[in-house]
Amino acid sequence: MTEKATKVTIISEKLIQADIVRIIEDAGASGYSVFEGGGKGQHGLRPTARPKVVNDFGIVKIEAVVADRSVADTIAEKVAATYFDNYSGIVYLEEVEILRPKKF
Amino acid sequence: MTEKATKVTIISEKLIQADIVRIIEDAGASGYSVFEGGGKGQHGLRPTARPKVVNDFGIVKIEAVVADRSVADTIAEKVAATYFDNYSGIVYLEEVEILRPKKF
Amino acid sequence: MTEKATKVTIISEKLIQADIVRIIEDAGASGYSVFEGGGKGQHGLRPTARPKVVNDFGIVKIEAVVADRSVADTIAEKVAATYFDNYSGIVYLEEVEILRPKKF
Repeated sequence: MTEKATKVTIISEKLIQADIVRIIEDAGASGYSVFEGGGKGQHGLRPTARPKVVNDFGIVKIEAVVADRSVADTIAEKVAATYFDNYSGIVYLEEVEILRPKKF
Repeated sequence: MTEKATKVTIISEKLIQADIVRIIEDAGASGYSVFEGGGKGQHGLRPTARPKVVNDFGIVKIEAVVADRSVADTIAEKVAATYFDNYSGIVYLEEVEILRPKKF
Repeated sequence: MTEKATKVTIISEKLIQADIVRIIEDAGASGYSVFEGGGKGQHGLRPTARPKVVNDFGIVKIEAVVADRSVADTIAEKVAATYFDNYSGIVYLEEVEILRPKKF
């Protein structure tokens, strides 16, 4: 009934959202979703600038579900290598089960 | 300490949120969460109408965690069959570990 | 290329967000993210007060990705034991794959 796929999740400063979306699209993902939120630490925003404040709209969570694991790996590697040595943010991968595989 | 459960995630146009929630409730899930976001492609909103624009409040992510895998399958199948041949949107399943199983 | 890590997700009333964040920080997580949403039932807000209404900003989803599984277990157990017998809310754990493990 279901098929395996991979979800790539990137939590980053909103500032670099457009650049991350471009990496996702260039890698060949058929779509992505963006959710605004807040946070702290490496997961969130500049820890030194706002050490004790939750900025409710400072970060974005960008997700893409792809049928091809290598597309997920490409996105994750490129985002981490390009941005996350200098910007706050994390990227992680999860295995999911999808329906309607032609959509991915 | 933990027990296995299944999370069903639906990313859809906001237009059909109430209908999807009804499917979730009718299937017997004890609760759900809704998050508003943006996106593009099959994951998000009408790709032809807004090919390069991220509409920050155009989509919803609806999640339900259920202890019974067959409830998750019912929700996923019914949402995909009823809406996702005609509307943009995706549905996927993930295995999670829960505490307090009586809540699910 | 990737390493295993654990994501702890807490869906709770917004009222107790600060207390849950304190548990996450005290457990030693290096960061967390917060997303506002709505919902119903044990997943969401007081089910008796708003039985049929989706309150779009009533709940928060708080996520922390940690490299050390025992940190995730500590957070999940403490949140569930302290709050979820009296407040609506759920906590669940997922296995994820991370890049840049020094961030976690």
